[in-house]
Parts: sequence; C-alpha cells; structure tokens
Amino acid sequence: MKNSAILLLTCPDRKGLVATISDFVFRHNGNILHADEHGDEESGLFLMRVEFDPKEFDINFSEFDKHFLPIAQKYQMQWRLAQSNHRPKMAILVSKYDHCLVDLLYRHKSGELACEIPIVISNHPDNKPIADFYRVPFSVIPVPKENKREAEQKILGLLRQHRPDFLVLARYMQILPPEFLSEYPQRIINIHHSFLPAFVGAKPYHQAFVRGVKLIGATSHYVTEVLDDGPIIEQDLVRISHRDSLDDLLQKGRDLEKVVLSRAVRWHIENRILVYGNKTVVFT
Amino acid sequence: MKNSAILLLTCPDRKGLVATISDFVFRHNGNILHADEHGDEESGLFLMRVEFDPKEFDINFSEFDKHFLPIAQKYQMQWRLAQSNHRPKMAILVSKYDHCLVDLLYRHKSGELACEIPIVISNHPDNKPIADFYRVPFSVIPVPKENKREAEQKILGLLRQHRPDFLVLARYMQILPPEFLSEYPQRIINIHHSFLPAFVGAKPYHQAFVRGVKLIGATSHYVTEVLDDGPIIEQDLVRISHRDSLDDLLQKGRDLEKVVLSRAVRWHIENRILVYGNKTVVFT
Amino acid sequence: MKNSAILLLTCPDRKGLVATISDFVFRHNGNILHADEHGDEESGLFLMRVEFDPKEFDINFSEFDKHFLPIAQKYQMQWRLAQSNHRPKMAILVSKYDHCLVDLLYRHKSGELACEIPIVISNHPDNKPIADFYRVPFSVIPVPKENKREAEQKILGLLRQHRPDFLVLARYMQILPPEFLSEYPQRIINIHHSFLPAFVGAKPYHQAFVRGVKLIGATSHYVTEVLDDGPIIEQDLVRISHRDSLDDLLQKGRDLEKVVLSRAVRWHIENRILVYGNKTVVFT
Amino acid sequence: MKNSAILLLTCPDRKGLVATISDFVFRHNGNILHADEHGDEESGLFLMRVEFDPKEFDINFSEFDKHFLPIAQKYQMQWRLAQSNHRPKMAILVSKYDHCLVDLLYRHKSGELACEIPIVISNHPDNKPIADFYRVPFSVIPVPKENKREAEQKILGLLRQHRPDFLVLARYMQILPPEFLSEYPQRIINIHHSFLPAFVGAKPYHQAFVRGVKLIGATSHYVTEVLDDGPIIEQDLVRISHRDSLDDLLQKGRDLEKVVLSRAVRWHIENRILVYGNKTVVFT
Repeated sequence: MKNSAILLLTCPDRKGLVATISDFVFRHNGNILHADEHGDEESGLFLMRVEFDPKEFDINFSEFDKHFLPIAQKYQMQWRLAQSNHRPKMAILVSKYDHCLVDLLYRHKSGELACEIPIVISNHPDNKPIADFYRVPFSVIPVPKENKREAEQKILGLLRQHRPDFLVLARYMQILPPEFLSEYPQRIINIHHSFLPAFVGAKPYHQAFVRGVKLIGATSHYVTEVLDDGPIIEQDLVRISHRDSLDDLLQKGRDLEKVVLSRAVRWHIENRILVYGNKTVVFT
Repeated sequence: MKNSAILLLTCPDRKGLVATISDFVFRHNGNILHADEHGDEESGLFLMRVEFDPKEFDINFSEFDKHFLPIAQKYQMQWRLAQSNHRPKMAILVSKYDHCLVDLLYRHKSGELACEIPIVISNHPDNKPIADFYRVPFSVIPVPKENKREAEQKILGLLRQHRPDFLVLARYMQILPPEFLSEYPQRIINIHHSFLPAFVGAKPYHQAFVRGVKLIGATSHYVTEVLDDGPIIEQDLVRISHRDSLDDLLQKGRDLEKVVLSRAVRWHIENRILVYGNKTVVFT
Repeated sequence: MKNSAILLLTCPDRKGLVATISDFVFRHNGNILHADEHGDEESGLFLMRVEFDPKEFDINFSEFDKHFLPIAQKYQMQWRLAQSNHRPKMAILVSKYDHCLVDLLYRHKSGELACEIPIVISNHPDNKPIADFYRVPFSVIPVPKENKREAEQKILGLLRQHRPDFLVLARYMQILPPEFLSEYPQRIINIHHSFLPAFVGAKPYHQAFVRGVKLIGATSHYVTEVLDDGPIIEQDLVRISHRDSLDDLLQKGRDLEKVVLSRAVRWHIENRILVYGNKTVVFT
Repeated sequence: MKNSAILLLTCPDRKGLVATISDFVFRHNGNILHADEHGDEESGLFLMRVEFDPKEFDINFSEFDKHFLPIAQKYQMQWRLAQSNHRPKMAILVSKYDHCLVDLLYRHKSGELACEIPIVISNHPDNKPIADFYRVPFSVIPVPKENKREAEQKILGLLRQHRPDFLVLARYMQILPPEFLSEYPQRIINIHHSFLPAFVGAKPYHQAFVRGVKLIGATSHYVTEVLDDGPIIEQDLVRISHRDSLDDLLQKGRDLEKVVLSRAVRWHIENRILVYGNKTVVFT
C-alpha cells in the first residue's frame, strides 16, 4: 500500500473553500487521490477530507503547519494532517466476552486494520491465550467493586505508559470514569449491543426480547459522559423472529457487534470520521 | 386461489397438542396444507396455525364449534377459525400524507390484499381523488381541536355502520380515544415512522436526524392504550448518511412505511398473526 | 428547491484537476455545494460531479461553453452542464404490468421525480386509466408480431414528436431495435427482474425458482445492443425461502423492481450517473 | 443444552401425514418441541422435520427403525433420525485463505457448532498454527499439478481413517474428483464467492468487478458433479460502489463468505436441511 496524506478539516462554510484547499495541494505538487466534503446546513459547518499523494509534495510534513497556517487562520479551521503509513496505536479493553477481541486481532493480523496494538487490558484473565497467539501484550487488572477506583488508576497508568492514540472497548463491561474521557476525547470507541437510542443501558438483548422487536441491532460510538449517548459511528441490524430464543439473540448479536465495531475501528484508523456536535460524518 | 381453512389457537403447552389437532383435521377428512406452531418458553404457551384444504372436510363450518369444543375445553384453548376466501372488511383512517393509502389501494386492486374496503375516513379532503379512482368510498370528517370529541363520535358511528373487521391507520395523525380500542381490540394496525422503541412520539424523523443515527426505521403494530407501545408486527430499516437532509429522511422513510404497513396488513388478512402478551407471532 | 448547476465531466486523470475546476467555479463567483470525484485506476479516467450555487455566478449559462472551453480542451474533457431547475422530459414505454408505471407516476406527482412526462406509450390499452388519473398523455401502439417493424417506426415517430430527453422501459416487453439505441444512447433505462448477470433473458423469476436461489433481485441498467448487458445503474435483492411459490416470487419481485427502477430514474434526472466503459459511477 | 430427537423425512404428499407422524411421536410419549413441513407443489413431495423431547419416549432409539418401519413403508418415506446431542464429525479442507477456517474454528470452540473436527486437511502448511491453537489435527497434503491423482488418494485415505460425517470446503482451491462425491453424497459443503448462478467458475470477484455490479455475494451449496451447480443452502450479498477497488471487494467478500458458510454448516449440523431435486429446504 502506498502512502497517502489525509487532511481533515472543519470550519464555517463559505465560498471558495474547495478551491482554496485543492489549490494549496496542487500548488505544492500534491496529487489529490480523493476529496470529499459535506456542508451541514443546520450548523453552517463545512467538513472536508482530502487524500493526496505526497510523493512529489514540496512541503516537508514537519513544516506543513507553517505553510497551511495562513489558510487555517483565514477560514478559522480546525484541522489535522495524517499519513496513511503512520500506524496509530490502539489499546483494547475487554472483559470476558471474546468475540470482538478475536475479530479485531484477526483483522489486525490479516492487514485489514493498519494499526499497532501496544496493549490489551482486561479485568479477567480469560482472553490471554488468544492475545498470546497473536503476540499482543495482555495485562490483567481486576476491577473489584470495593476497589474500583484503584483499578481504574492502574489502567490509566498502564495506558500512559503505552501512549495509545485511541481506545477500543471490545465489550468491556465497566463504565469508564471521566478521566478516561478527558485523556482520550473522541478517541474511545465503544460497541453497544442495541440499535441506539433503543435499549440504552444494561442487558439490551433482554430488553429487545421483552419488547418483541423484529430486528436487533448494534451501535459503535464514541464514548462521552452520558451513557450510550456519544456520537454514533456505525449501526447495523439483523432480523429475528419469535423462533429466536434469548440465546439466539445473543448469538446473532455477536456477529453483528463484531462487524459494526470493526468498521468503526477501521474508519477511525483511516481518518475517515469527523465529529461535529453529537454526530459524525464518515467519509467512505 | 382455492379456499383453505385456517385454525388459529393458543393454549397452555403440553404433550400431544400437534397430534390431537392434526388428528382432528385428518379424522374429519381435511388435508393439512401447512402447519406451524410455536412454544413460548417464558409464558408456557403453545401457539399454532393450521391451514387445511376443506374440500372434503366432513364438518360444516357452521357446526365446527360444536365438534371442536371438546378439544378446546380439554386444552383450555383460545381459538378461531377463518377461511381464506372470506374477505375481511378493512376500514382505513388517513390524514394528508397519501403514500400509505395509495400503496394499500393499489395492492388491494392488484389482488395482493384479499379484503374489502367499505370505507376510507379522513380528517382532510385531500385524498378523495385517489379513493375515487379506485372506487372506494371516502368520507371526510374534520377533527377540529375544539370539537375533537364530537368528531370521534362521528367516526365511530360511521364505522359502526360499515362494520369493518379491522382498522388501518395509514398515517392518521390523530390519537384515537379508548373507545376505539375497546371496539377493535388487537384489530387496529398503525404505522409508526421509527424503529420502535426508539423515537416514540411526535416527529421521529426529526428525532433521528438530531441523534445522528445511521439507519432509519418504520414499525407497524397493534394499537394499545399506551402510545407507540402495542405489539409489534413488523419493522424494517434503511441506511442513511450525513448526506441525507431531513427531507431525504422523510422520503426514504415513506418507502419504508409503505412496505412495512402493507406487510402487516397482508399478514393480518391472511390470519398469520397471533398476539400473546405484548408480542406477536407471525407465521409466515 | 433552489436552483443549482451541475457540471459532469470525464477526462484522463492527472494532477490538479480538482483545483482547476473548483478554482474555475470560485473565480466566477459560484459556490460549490457538493463536489464528488472518482479516479478509476484501471482506465486511468477521472470522473467528477460538481454541484454549485449559480446565484452570483458571473457567467451566463448560454456562454458557459466559451469560458470553460480552454480548460476542457487542455484536459481533453467530455463534459456537460445541467441545471437542477431544468426538468428533463421522460418518455415511458410500458406493456401490461402496471406496478412500475404506477410507482413512477406517483413519485412524479409527489415531486420526487423532477421531470416532465410528455408521453407514455404502450402496446396495450390496459394502463390508460392510471395515466389519465395522473393527467399524463397515453398512446397505444400495438406491436403485432407480423408487423413489428411498422409499429416500431410509429413509436419512433411519436417520440421524435415529443422529443424526450430519455426513455424508461417500465416493464416494456418488447426488444427495441438498434435505431432506438442510436437516437437515445445511454439514455434508455430498463428494469430487468433479476440480479444480473444471473438469469439473463426471459422469465428470470422462473429461472430463479428452478435454480433454488435464496434471494431474488432486480437490476436497472442502460440499454445497449447486447440483451441485458448494458451498464448497471442499481440493483437490489430480497430474501425468499422454500415457502415462496412462483407467485410469491413475482409479488416480492414487483416491490423490488419499483424501488430499483425509481432510484435509477431519480439519479438519471439528478445528473448523478456517469457511464465509463460498461460501468457506471453513481454520485449519491 | 438438553437433548432432542430430530426426525427428517420426505415422501409423496398425501392426506394425514402430519397426523400420522405426530400421533406416532405422541403415542410413544415423545413431546413435540417443533414441527415444520413443506409441501412442494411441483414435485408433489412432502418434506418434514419434527423435533421432539425424547426424555419419556418409550422406544429405545436402537429400535426406532423397527417401530417406525410400518409407517415409513406405507408412505414410501425416505427418512433419518438424529439426536441433537450426537456431535457429527466435520472434516475441513482448506488452502491458503484462512478467514473461513478461522471463523469455523472459533465458532466451534465457542459452542456454536455442535460437532467434532477430527481433521483439517490442507494443500499448504500456512494454516497449521491456527489449527494448533484450537487443538484441531492438521494434515498437509500438497497437491502438485503433476501428481494430483496421488494426492487425492492420500486425502481420501486420510478421510477414510477419520470417518467424518461431512466435509466442508473452507475456500479449498482444488476441484474434487467424483470419488469424493460418491463417498459423501450431499455431504460436502462448499462456499463459492459469488451470488450463484452469477459468476460461475474462477475469480468471481474479478468477474463482478468487470461487470460493474452494485452488490457482491457468496453462496454455500452442496457439491455435485457440475461445477458450482449443486443445491444452494444459503446466500447473501453486500453493497459495493465504484469506490471499491478489487481489493475492497475481496475484503468485503471475506466477511460475507464466513457468515454464509457458517450458517450452512450450522444448519447441516442441526439437521435442518433437506435436499430435493437440485434445491434445498432449510427448516429454520
């Protein structure tokens, strides 16, 4: 896979933005591979993702800031530049359920997820063998009810040591305290096993079973302070019927959770997601 | 289409039910075309739908009761017998949106919905031309805020006169008072324009737009006293993205509503739905 | 709906195309509402769709050619300019099946399809009433086997008189002779009732039934000289099972055909489709 | 999971079959948990699956034959009896692609596939580590072009030694000779990476890419003598667009293949599939 540069930006919408940015890339001898933008009418925001071939780009990336600053200031942009050959560090938190972890590790190994995995942290030792198989470091930090706070600090410490770029909660059954959110703002991806905002909170498959819905869903979203309320990245559903027991729901749901989480993770790694307000734009 | 008889029943689950019922049909020279049952573990209920060819059946349907009574009593069954060549009467209530009405009338005319439509009632005159085109009686009963009660009584009176077997709310924008529910228990089908229980109440597409979901849904259900809480018959969803404006959601939603409502109506007509607790079994 | 201008173009891929085009629009005081492009690696082609607000655009559209010519020539572009408030003329050809026609006419009336319908032509009189209801001209031109050629000439004549921008075959059961293709190149949209390239030719639902597939499909495509082989615009499928008779397949298929055809027609009207080789790009 | 008995049968359709079979089960004190049947109008066949609780069944399964024989003969039934707590033996053949193998082994370990895996056979050593991880025997038998016949005999020998009940080709890239089909009739499950009958043969994703389809599919089927022509068990599709490169198709396809194959395997293990003619009934 050849390297490409990805410029992601958000600013108040106004005339000439596409021209200004594409001209900047062109003037410095970059070749736009793909450009996508979105004008959000409600907020008056302009959001853009430009992917370009930097082979002949005449600005050194370490000095990109300096050259782009005048444009960024003029248009009041929030922006960041990424490179596709930079592999971000993903830390995974997991409890006992292994399906999402197994799926992420397999996709990582097969090259589908272009990231590093410096650490997998779990409150249970059960998933150590699969992490070992894929040669990914695995740390067990039990989270006892009576000592939750201390455990959380240990996890934070471990994370600070490994400095991941983002966190994935691969069916991690503990609620994270606010410190995690402030250290990793818009950088913690969770998988919730329902079609949010239906069935917020605990045991969504049980809730779905009791309500008698005809499809069950899964939702990946960025974690915010309000439970199950963060910006939604991806959702999907699968049909069920009266024949499906609660166990069948759990099983069908597992297949869904894996796919929905892995899509969100891949898009995050590929710098395809922009958050605005409590929503996301996914440039696919 | 040849005629078939459909026996629908619910009773406490116990050994020998399938044998007893299929033997009853066989003994009286009926030929089972299709049998389907469901044992609900939670409630301990047995639910069954048997469709049989009554051509050589040796019991006159007017005397079916008498012959089936011993079995029904022994097993404490709730049951009903229907015939596929009996066309039930469907009354439609509609407001200004016409997409569901147009769809139902077309399917009715094309033979997909084997029912009679004695009356379409609306609080607005807008949809009279399409009802006229399909030669279906159309009555306008305005429902002014200051005189809601009187209008409701008029509608009830009109219904009593036409004696429909069931009611369909094809995007009828008024909440029905309890009298309707007691006159048509489990026989009023509504279409709600969200994937229930997400986005209960008014303006679900607006709610969905604000929440930033990645799919929008529609739900057909039997109406009960609690708003948008009745037994769900059918649901479906369609993918949306940040590119979709609120208008796009409304348009995509219309296509969904039509399909989800018409499925529910067809299954109701074909006696495929059994309600138990607040859930449905749909024998498809 | 406010007016927008849509520039569609194809040319050999090279550096600076996005910049050049967006700069052209910006320089002439147009505001880009949405830009989308695609680089096809195999053919080395660049395809782009730019939608811009022409309110303050300083070039009169009648003179757009002249101003854009230097760019078009330099980059060897094939291009066209459209305006969203120009309503293209769509002629519909239909036989006896009415579901696609009914759907198109309804969507047209409800404002979903921003086109004019100068003429509906059929080889049977059956669908005249619905065309009358929607006040769309309807001409019957029988196509007898022994006089096919003459009938085709009549149809061509009628079309020449009404000068439609494109043709829609809404389950028209006659094969069109080459003259139609040369008069309306890449402007005849057909709906084929299978997931092409499976089940080419006659009676695809029968073929699907015999083969025992688990889903049935529909495909809308531009008509070319080779039967069922033109560039595919849209496809979709629906699940079936052993319970579905051939009649059920036909009924489920009808719902699919309507939706798949109407999407293709809307995208064509909205100038979202670019054909390259035997494939399409649909900028949605 | 408690044990249940599953009776699968096919016979010419006639009156009284459901009654006769359910009465037989009831008379011998079995409790029907689920019964499902299908009457195929074209062939005049009756196909049935009865699942019953054998706890108080008064016939020893070793003598079931003797007791059921009179019924089976009278109605010319083809039938078999299975028990849910009997774990059939599944042999897997695989080449280099690992996604289906990894998925099957994980589902096996997690309890979703109630079978034994006595042997995985591959023409390449690449997938040994994952088999080792899941503690499943793995044999490498290279299949050189110049010595194909000998390799096939070795594989057959190995299979004879392990006596699997059925074979799964988890992206095994060799065509099996007729001997395999005669030893495992209707017991070899293949996954083909297209929506059959579209794109028969080699490189279906390439074919799909060239044809410009808007969805790609996968098909699991029983292997017969004609390539990619056996009875279809399950199919599914996923949407693609012009943005998807051939590599993207391959990646999206992998997710599809896993799911479609694992469903077919689970249904086979749970005795849910009946083959008739070149089609299947799947009692789900």
